[in-house]
Amino acid sequence: MTKIKFAVAGLGRIGKIHLENLLQMSRVKIVAVMDTMEESKQYARDKGISNVTSTYEAMLASTDIDVVVICSPTDTHADYVEMAAKAGKHIFCEKPLDLSLDRVVEVLDVVKDTNIKLMIGFNRRFDKEFKKIKALVSEGAIGEHHLVKITSRDPGAPPVSYIEKSGGLFLDMTIHDFDMARFIVGKEVVEVYAKGAVLVDPAIGEAGDIDTAVITLTYADGTMAIIDNSREAAYGYDQRVEVFGSKGMVKTENNLHDSHQLFTSQGSQGSLPLHFFLERYAEAYKNEMSDYIKSLENGGEIPATGNDGLQSLKIGLAAIKSLKENRPIKLSDIDQSHDVKMLK
Amino acid sequence: MTKIKFAVAGLGRIGKIHLENLLQMSRVKIVAVMDTMEESKQYARDKGISNVTSTYEAMLASTDIDVVVICSPTDTHADYVEMAAKAGKHIFCEKPLDLSLDRVVEVLDVVKDTNIKLMIGFNRRFDKEFKKIKALVSEGAIGEHHLVKITSRDPGAPPVSYIEKSGGLFLDMTIHDFDMARFIVGKEVVEVYAKGAVLVDPAIGEAGDIDTAVITLTYADGTMAIIDNSREAAYGYDQRVEVFGSKGMVKTENNLHDSHQLFTSQGSQGSLPLHFFLERYAEAYKNEMSDYIKSLENGGEIPATGNDGLQSLKIGLAAIKSLKENRPIKLSDIDQSHDVKMLK
Amino acid sequence: MTKIKFAVAGLGRIGKIHLENLLQMSRVKIVAVMDTMEESKQYARDKGISNVTSTYEAMLASTDIDVVVICSPTDTHADYVEMAAKAGKHIFCEKPLDLSLDRVVEVLDVVKDTNIKLMIGFNRRFDKEFKKIKALVSEGAIGEHHLVKITSRDPGAPPVSYIEKSGGLFLDMTIHDFDMARFIVGKEVVEVYAKGAVLVDPAIGEAGDIDTAVITLTYADGTMAIIDNSREAAYGYDQRVEVFGSKGMVKTENNLHDSHQLFTSQGSQGSLPLHFFLERYAEAYKNEMSDYIKSLENGGEIPATGNDGLQSLKIGLAAIKSLKENRPIKLSDIDQSHDVKMLK
Amino acid sequence: MTKIKFAVAGLGRIGKIHLENLLQMSRVKIVAVMDTMEESKQYARDKGISNVTSTYEAMLASTDIDVVVICSPTDTHADYVEMAAKAGKHIFCEKPLDLSLDRVVEVLDVVKDTNIKLMIGFNRRFDKEFKKIKALVSEGAIGEHHLVKITSRDPGAPPVSYIEKSGGLFLDMTIHDFDMARFIVGKEVVEVYAKGAVLVDPAIGEAGDIDTAVITLTYADGTMAIIDNSREAAYGYDQRVEVFGSKGMVKTENNLHDSHQLFTSQGSQGSLPLHFFLERYAEAYKNEMSDYIKSLENGGEIPATGNDGLQSLKIGLAAIKSLKENRPIKLSDIDQSHDVKMLK
Repeated sequence: MTKIKFAVAGLGRIGKIHLENLLQMSRVKIVAVMDTMEESKQYARDKGISNVTSTYEAMLASTDIDVVVICSPTDTHADYVEMAAKAGKHIFCEKPLDLSLDRVVEVLDVVKDTNIKLMIGFNRRFDKEFKKIKALVSEGAIGEHHLVKITSRDPGAPPVSYIEKSGGLFLDMTIHDFDMARFIVGKEVVEVYAKGAVLVDPAIGEAGDIDTAVITLTYADGTMAIIDNSREAAYGYDQRVEVFGSKGMVKTENNLHDSHQLFTSQGSQGSLPLHFFLERYAEAYKNEMSDYIKSLENGGEIPATGNDGLQSLKIGLAAIKSLKENRPIKLSDIDQSHDVKMLK
Repeated sequence: MTKIKFAVAGLGRIGKIHLENLLQMSRVKIVAVMDTMEESKQYARDKGISNVTSTYEAMLASTDIDVVVICSPTDTHADYVEMAAKAGKHIFCEKPLDLSLDRVVEVLDVVKDTNIKLMIGFNRRFDKEFKKIKALVSEGAIGEHHLVKITSRDPGAPPVSYIEKSGGLFLDMTIHDFDMARFIVGKEVVEVYAKGAVLVDPAIGEAGDIDTAVITLTYADGTMAIIDNSREAAYGYDQRVEVFGSKGMVKTENNLHDSHQLFTSQGSQGSLPLHFFLERYAEAYKNEMSDYIKSLENGGEIPATGNDGLQSLKIGLAAIKSLKENRPIKLSDIDQSHDVKMLK
Repeated sequence: MTKIKFAVAGLGRIGKIHLENLLQMSRVKIVAVMDTMEESKQYARDKGISNVTSTYEAMLASTDIDVVVICSPTDTHADYVEMAAKAGKHIFCEKPLDLSLDRVVEVLDVVKDTNIKLMIGFNRRFDKEFKKIKALVSEGAIGEHHLVKITSRDPGAPPVSYIEKSGGLFLDMTIHDFDMARFIVGKEVVEVYAKGAVLVDPAIGEAGDIDTAVITLTYADGTMAIIDNSREAAYGYDQRVEVFGSKGMVKTENNLHDSHQLFTSQGSQGSLPLHFFLERYAEAYKNEMSDYIKSLENGGEIPATGNDGLQSLKIGLAAIKSLKENRPIKLSDIDQSHDVKMLK
Repeated sequence: MTKIKFAVAGLGRIGKIHLENLLQMSRVKIVAVMDTMEESKQYARDKGISNVTSTYEAMLASTDIDVVVICSPTDTHADYVEMAAKAGKHIFCEKPLDLSLDRVVEVLDVVKDTNIKLMIGFNRRFDKEFKKIKALVSEGAIGEHHLVKITSRDPGAPPVSYIEKSGGLFLDMTIHDFDMARFIVGKEVVEVYAKGAVLVDPAIGEAGDIDTAVITLTYADGTMAIIDNSREAAYGYDQRVEVFGSKGMVKTENNLHDSHQLFTSQGSQGSLPLHFFLERYAEAYKNEMSDYIKSLENGGEIPATGNDGLQSLKIGLAAIKSLKENRPIKLSDIDQSHDVKMLK
C-alpha cells in the first residue's frame, strides 16, 4: 500500500494534535514539518520526523508531498493555501482562511482552478454528538425543522493580545457555531441579528470586542437558529445543540468527566464537562482527519469545504455589522466593504 | 379562626382549578360564585356552594365577600377588577388585565387609590422548578447573571378563533415567559427583538399571528435573555429555564410522566413531559393561591402585582412592534399608540 | 348517584391520608370514624365528620356502612378484619394482616366464606413508576425476565420501641419489597436467602433486629430477585426497581424534589429524593383507594388481595429463618412453627 | 532517557491492545514479541517490530528485556510468569494467573523470592468511573460503607468451547467483579453465597456452567456486597457500581455512545452503552499500563498484585462451591481441594 505523504505547517497546540493523529494512521507518512520555534522542531524530531524546516517555502520544496496541513497563525493561512494550491498539493487548513472576505474569495478562486481538495478544519462536524444530531435530523426524526439552538461557551477567555488579532468573538469563536447552524440542518442563513455585551472582562471591551453574545439567525426558509456565547463558563466547556421540529426535538448534553452521582444529606453532586476543546473534541479531531483522508482516497465529497469557510465568515461579518448597528443584517448585504480589522 | 370569604367569577378550566384548590384550604370559605353557563353553576352546586349567580354584579352584591377571584374571559378582567376595587374587595385576577395598555394603566390607577391587594395569576412563579432557580440565582449561586434562557412550547395550538381574541402569541403565551424573564433575575427589560414564523399551521398565519418565535430581551444592565416558543411541540409541554452567570449555570428540565428508562437492542426509551399546564402546574396553582392568602393574612408583599402584569404587557407590545418592523424596540418607546387589536 | 359509605378505623398518620383522600372522592361518603385519641377525634370533626366513636365495635354498630378502612395498630388488624367480614362489610386493611401466619390463615378463611372484598394496603403497587415498570414487563418489553432488583432504603430508622412491635425489618419494611418482587413479574417466590447486619444503630441490634440487609429471592422458574435495604439513607427515601430480561432492562429512578442542576467550578449539584413515603407515595395512596373503589363498583379483581398479604408474610418469615440459620430457606418449609414474636 | 524494554507474549485481542498502547509511550521500547500465529507476527512486523519469535523461550532469550507482558492463553500464564520471574524480568500478566489455587500459590512463591514486580491485569481498576467512586469512598464522602452493588453484564456469551476452558462464569467473568468488590472499599471478603441459572443459552448449561448469577459477598466487618451477572444483555455492556454508606451513596452509570435525547410523540429515545470492554475500557487499558510503568519507575506500589489475583480466585472458587451446595461458603474453607477443572 502506497502511503499518503503529509506535511504539517505549524506545530502549535492544534498542529501537534493533527501530527499525533496522523502518526497513528497506517496509510499516512509524515514527510515534512515546518515551524519557526526550536521547541516545536525538537518535538517533531522526537517523534521520529527528520525533515524539519523553518519556512513554509522550504517545506514545500523539501520533498515529494501529497497533502499539506496548515496549522500556522491565521494571517498566514491565505498565502499558504494559495502556495500549496499552485504547487498542486491537497490542503487541510485550520479555520479561518482569512478575516477578509476579499482575500478568501481570491484564494478560493485560485483553488477552484486546480484539482486539489481543500478542507477547512471545522472539527465539530466530526464530534459524535453533533454527527448523531445531524443524522437524526437528516433522516426526518424531528420532521420539518423549526428551531436550532446552539450553546457555546468557553471555560475562559484567551489573552487580550490574542483577541485583538483574532477578529473578535464572532470570527474567532462563534464562527464554529455559525458553521454548526448550517451543518446541522443543511440550510443557508440569510439574516443575522446579534446582541452582545462585555460581562466577563472589561479589558476585552477596551480591545473593541465583546465576551457575551446572543445571535438570532434566520434561514432562507424562514426558520430560525439561536446561538448563545460566553468567553467564560466557570464550569468548563459548554457545547450543546438542540433542534426542534414538527415531529419532535433532539438535543445533546455536554460530555462529562465521568458519570458519578454522589447523594448525601446536602444534595446530589456530579462531574463537570470536559474542560475545553482538546478534551471534548479529541476524538473529533481524529475523525476529522480520517474522514478527510477517506475523501481523498475514494474521491468523495470533502466534509468541510472552502465554501463552508466562506459562508461562516459572511455570517460572522454580518454579526459584527448587526452588533454595531443594532439591527438585523441580511447576508446579501455583506460584501468586501464590511471586512473587519478590529471590532471597534 | 375567622375564615376568609372568597367569591369566584368564571368557572371555566382555570376557574375550576382555583375553586377546587380553595375548597381544600381550611382558612377559606367560598361564599359565592358566578358563571353564565348552567353546567358551571351545577358544578358549583355539586361542590356544596349554594350562592350561585349569573352576573358579576349580582355576585358582588349577594353577600359579604373579602376576596374576588376573577377567571372570566379576558375582555371582562378590567371592568371586573375596577368594580371589585371600588367595592373594597381584594382581587386575584387571571392574566392579562387587558390587552390595551391604556386600559391597564387606568385600572391600576383605580386600584392604587384603594387599600385592596391585587394579585395577577402568573402561576409559573409558584412552580417548584422555577422557584428553585430563582432562589439559587438570588443567593448568588451563579454569581452575576449574564444570560437567561427560556424555552416555552405548548403541546398544540388553540383554535384559531381563540387566537384571534387572545392578542396573539406574544400576549397570550409568551407573556408568561416575559414575566419569567423579569421574575427569575429581578431585573427590568429595556429592549426587545422578536423574530417569528408560521411553521405549525397556515391558518394561524391567516389569522394574523405567528406560531413559532425567538425573542431576545435586553435588561437595563446590558445582560440578555432569549425566549423560544412554539405552539406545537409533538412531545408535550416544554417548559425549561436556564440562567448563566459569572460563577456558573443553573437549569431545570421538564417534568416527565415517570422516570423509567428502558434499554433494548434498539436504544433507550423514556417518558414524555407532563402533557400541558394543568398537569405541569397543578401544584403551582395551589401554591399560588396559598401564597396570595398568606400575603393577605400577614400583610406581606403580593407575589405578582398589577405592575408585573403591566410590565409583561409592555414587553409583549414591544415584541409585536419588533416583529412587524424587524428591528429592536425599546420599551421606553412603547405607549398607548402601540395597543393591539390584532397582530395584522 | 348513591355514594359508597365508608368508615375509617384508626386516624394515625396513614389513617389521615386515607381519610383525606376519601373526602376528595365524589362517589364516597364518610359515615363514621373511630380512634381512641381525642386529638384524632377532633381532627375528624374538623373535617365535618360527626359520627366519631372510640371503639371499633361502636363504629360498626353506629350506622349503615359499606366499607371499613382499617388503619389501627397492627395487632388489631386480624380481629377487626374478622369482625367486619362477619358483619358483611368490604374491607381495606393496611398491611400486615398479622405477624402470625396461623392467624392470617384463620382470618382469610373467615373472609373466604363471605362475599366481601378484602384489599391489603400495598401502596407501592399504585405508584406511577412501578406501574410503568410492571406494564412494560407485562407487555414483553424486556422479553423473558431474568433478574429483578429492588432498592428500598428509609431516610431514618423508627424508634426502637416501634421496631420491637413491628416484627422487625423483614416484616415491617422489606415486606413491601417482597410484595413488589411478586407484583412486578407476577411470579411466586420459592426460596429466600437473607443476609443482614446492624450498621446504623446498635440499639436496633440490642432489640434483636437488623438495620441493613441483602436478600436473594428465587422464583419458581429459577429466575432471581435481589433486594437491598437500609433503615437510614442520609439522602432520603431510596426506592428503585430494575428488571432485566432476555430483550433488555427497565429501571426507575427516585423522584427528586426538583430537576434543577447547578454547575459551578466545584461540580454539578442537584436535588435529593422526596424525603419519605408520605411525599413519594402521595399520589399512590390516592390511586390505591380509587382503584379499590373501582373494583368494588365494577366487580373487578382486587388489586392487592389477602393472599398477597399471606405470600409476603411467608417470604418475610422465610427471610427471618434464613438470617438466623445463615442458609437459604424454601417457602415450602415455612409453616406456623416459624411464627415470630421477636427476631431474637 | 533510557527507555524501558518491553516484550509482549501473545498477540490476541488483548495483546494487541497492550502492544498498541505501549507503542504510544515515549518511555517504552518494544524489543520483542511472540505469537504462534503468522497473522499476529505480521501484525507486529507492520508495527515496525523486527524481533518476532514463535516461542516464549525464544523471546526471553532473544534480547535484553526489562518487562514481559503476558497475554497468551490462560493455561500458559503460570509457566510463563514463573519463567520470567526466574529470569529476573518484571511481569504484567493478564488475569487469571491460573485456575488452580495450588498452582497460583506456587507461582506467587516463586515471584516472592525475587525482586521483580508482578502486576495482574485487572483493567477495571483504571476506569475513570470506578477510580472516581473509589476516590470518593476513600475520602469518606459516603461515611462508613454498608453496601456495595456491582452490575456486570456482557453483551453476548462467548462460544461454549471458550466457556469450557475458562473456568466458567465465576472465574472468567465475575472474577473482575470480585476484584472490584475488594478494590472499591479496600476490604477482604470472608463469605460468599452464589445463586445461578441457565437463562440465556441451554448449551451453556450443558457445558456445566451458568449464564446468570446473583452473588452475595460478606466482608470481614459484616458489611455486604451484591453482584449480578448475565452473559447476555441485549442493550450492550452493562457495568455499574454503587456504594452505600452512613453518609450517602455514590454510583456510576454506563458510558453511552453519545448523549443525545430525542423526544417525539412516541416518547424519548437515547443511545446504548458502549458495546463491550474494548470500547468501554479503551482508556482504562492505557491507564493500567501507564500506572504500572510509573510504579516500576518510581518504586511505588503495584496497583494490582499477585495477591489480588489470588484473593479473587479464592472468592471465585467459593462461589462455585456455594452454587453447587446452595449454601454460603466461608473463604477460610477454600483450599486446594476445591480447585476446579469444570463446573459440573
